[in-house]
Amino acid sequence: MKHLLSIDEVGTDGLRHLLDLSDHMAEINRRPVPKVPALRGKTVVSLFFEDSTRTRLSFETAAKRLSADTMTFSVSTSSVNKGESLRDTIETVAAMGVDAFVVRHMSSGVPWQISRWTEASVINAGDGWHEHPTQALLDCYTIRTALNRPDGFEGLHIAIVGDIKHSRVARSDVWAFAALGARVTLVAPETLLPPSLDGWPVDVAHHIDDVVSKVDVLYMLRMQRERIHEALVPSLREYTSRFGLTPDRAGRLRQHAIVMHPGPMNRGVEMAVDPSELPGSVIAQQVTNGVSVRMAVLFQLLGSGSGLAGEAS
Amino acid sequence: MKHLLSIDEVGTDGLRHLLDLSDHMAEINRRPVPKVPALRGKTVVSLFFEDSTRTRLSFETAAKRLSADTMTFSVSTSSVNKGESLRDTIETVAAMGVDAFVVRHMSSGVPWQISRWTEASVINAGDGWHEHPTQALLDCYTIRTALNRPDGFEGLHIAIVGDIKHSRVARSDVWAFAALGARVTLVAPETLLPPSLDGWPVDVAHHIDDVVSKVDVLYMLRMQRERIHEALVPSLREYTSRFGLTPDRAGRLRQHAIVMHPGPMNRGVEMAVDPSELPGSVIAQQVTNGVSVRMAVLFQLLGSGSGLAGEAS
Amino acid sequence: MKHLLSIDEVGTDGLRHLLDLSDHMAEINRRPVPKVPALRGKTVVSLFFEDSTRTRLSFETAAKRLSADTMTFSVSTSSVNKGESLRDTIETVAAMGVDAFVVRHMSSGVPWQISRWTEASVINAGDGWHEHPTQALLDCYTIRTALNRPDGFEGLHIAIVGDIKHSRVARSDVWAFAALGARVTLVAPETLLPPSLDGWPVDVAHHIDDVVSKVDVLYMLRMQRERIHEALVPSLREYTSRFGLTPDRAGRLRQHAIVMHPGPMNRGVEMAVDPSELPGSVIAQQVTNGVSVRMAVLFQLLGSGSGLAGEAS
Repeated sequence: MKHLLSIDEVGTDGLRHLLDLSDHMAEINRRPVPKVPALRGKTVVSLFFEDSTRTRLSFETAAKRLSADTMTFSVSTSSVNKGESLRDTIETVAAMGVDAFVVRHMSSGVPWQISRWTEASVINAGDGWHEHPTQALLDCYTIRTALNRPDGFEGLHIAIVGDIKHSRVARSDVWAFAALGARVTLVAPETLLPPSLDGWPVDVAHHIDDVVSKVDVLYMLRMQRERIHEALVPSLREYTSRFGLTPDRAGRLRQHAIVMHPGPMNRGVEMAVDPSELPGSVIAQQVTNGVSVRMAVLFQLLGSGSGLAGEAS
Repeated sequence: MKHLLSIDEVGTDGLRHLLDLSDHMAEINRRPVPKVPALRGKTVVSLFFEDSTRTRLSFETAAKRLSADTMTFSVSTSSVNKGESLRDTIETVAAMGVDAFVVRHMSSGVPWQISRWTEASVINAGDGWHEHPTQALLDCYTIRTALNRPDGFEGLHIAIVGDIKHSRVARSDVWAFAALGARVTLVAPETLLPPSLDGWPVDVAHHIDDVVSKVDVLYMLRMQRERIHEALVPSLREYTSRFGLTPDRAGRLRQHAIVMHPGPMNRGVEMAVDPSELPGSVIAQQVTNGVSVRMAVLFQLLGSGSGLAGEAS
Repeated sequence: MKHLLSIDEVGTDGLRHLLDLSDHMAEINRRPVPKVPALRGKTVVSLFFEDSTRTRLSFETAAKRLSADTMTFSVSTSSVNKGESLRDTIETVAAMGVDAFVVRHMSSGVPWQISRWTEASVINAGDGWHEHPTQALLDCYTIRTALNRPDGFEGLHIAIVGDIKHSRVARSDVWAFAALGARVTLVAPETLLPPSLDGWPVDVAHHIDDVVSKVDVLYMLRMQRERIHEALVPSLREYTSRFGLTPDRAGRLRQHAIVMHPGPMNRGVEMAVDPSELPGSVIAQQVTNGVSVRMAVLFQLLGSGSGLAGEAS
């Protein structure tokens, strides 16, 4: 494994291996000094063409806990704006001795393209509507630990609710959840589903009430206000009435069911209930697990097999 | 002591303890390798909603010398702008495993509010017109060392000159100076004093000439040009004539008196004399001491009691 | 050697010494863990008044490999914008305990000016049209290694092609190449040469075809589109026809000749050939060598003579 570009490429065995490795990283993160020398001397560059403070901080925290050096390449102030080609920029930064690029871009496929121009590892931190593989990994890791399913998701029913069409999170999650054996239901208006679901291992519902009392995992997606202007949804109020998690619906969740959200939440829209009053909410755990999972990915791509033993010196 | 939100909360004993600890940190800062492993594995996040490069750099330098990891949360590019609530942002960043937030905000009380949402320590790095406790600490530490007063400020007369009303520095300094036993005189036009001084342990003068030849410490505040537009001051020239430190007035300072300023200075306005030609200026020492004092605060909040002994490994 | 402000000041012996030291740094950079403790506890501040992501990242990588702490002073958000004088800003940041400032500024002479205000070392990372000494060092180091000339450039013929007038790179390179014994030819239209070349150790040509088949080193400068608007060049097409490196001209290069560029390239303008298809291109090596050379400079200015021996602990 040289790059992490899509969940597909990782495969079921790879997925299980990364989740096992995340367990080890979570143990490190519970230590009084949560730091190991595993990636000392390695350089990880964040290359974010689209703002995402939470994802960038999560990767940087992960890299620092493995003792890697981190640098942020701020695209808005870089030569990319002076007309330098993206390829020249990548080749230049890579020539300084970079070991991994963490790439967020508004266009699908850019991380893959970058991986062809450099010897460094490339991690897709979200590309357009395409994929967000570390989000899928942290979601799987969260379900695995919250529902105690170390051996797989067979028999679990997971609903993903909201704007599937424009969601890289949904795309990556569907493949990962299915690879681990879960049954996945997408819940969305027709206008927010992809034009075709051929080959997707899912079934579809059009009202959250069809699934809320049946699922083990309720995965709520962020509802972007832009969708109203694009006339894909009549109004936020209407959206909430059919797809939002209201207190009433929260009361109908199964006892053991968990509620997830990739953040940032739109309170009063898809989250019409205060998550701090939802016993099944694992939203904060998703964030915490994100650091462990990204440590696992960085170690898998850049580590030498040793170095996880001791404390950072 | 879990947070540092206001000088008030610290209390006189706490103040003395932090100043003693700052002495220890100043000694570390004089070493050839000014670095100790005290906070290795701890993460300090700068959360600045208002720009202040000098304060942010001072905290980051302090954190690095204690071997903590530092991260900057740039609010202008964060989800706070996408309508995510401040609380969700704090809870998200905290869930990554943050040990302390250093918060600067234009509204009074925000650091206190944040401290209720997170298990991490919160340090107020300036909130609105309210408080700036680490500035007060570094000012006390500077007076203590410059005037050799390790046991307190009894018998010292300190004048704070300028825009008291809009100054969190003045507010924090008044309480800290008084707690250590100094006599404090505020020097300002009526328009730049708070509506009420009930309960403030100060007396008031309306012309710098009333105090300049009498005080041990002359503390000059930055005069913001906005005050002219707000018609609180007739003109900068008029302001300087009554409240500025001119060469003539500098000549009337007592031999041992020191001159302080929180920076950035407005040369030609409140500082109508070149500080490099003022023998009593301790303005550069204030900045240097700022790092020691912030190390003391971070160590007090996050340290385990050990770790100050050796060199950073 | 306290500062690095210009190539001139370094002198021929200084130049040779820094290139030898760069060899040592390049060896460190080839290790599995390219990190040494040489500058642990030192603080290097990047002070960029003009954006240059590549130069800033190169210096930061260099500093981190020597275990120094790095901080970026973002001028756009700093007090310099609030009317604080540059001098006050420098003195303030320096008072926090900075060991070196890396300064990029749009005006010639600013790094020199800053060096008079602080005890810290100042490294000129490009000032106006004046100098860019670390670029000259990395260019010399690249020629030395690519053409195997450890003892000097006697007998080498180097052409620098393009906008000499506005290029600090050209200015620094001319003096460095000449100091090491090379023959230097400048190739540019009259409008892009300095008003006078009195005292420059160069000869001049006005067409790239006059030199392309004769030189050992072809150094291409970036052609800024602004020059068209300033009417210094009739059109980019015309520029390329007389000064661009086309595939045809690349075919006429001597077998052993190398092609250099400081980046970012303007493909289709001065680089009308794909550098990845030029066997003599050492453009990526220039970037890689930039890190080694900047490590040498930082170590020379801040190092204590020891510390290069072991691995970073």
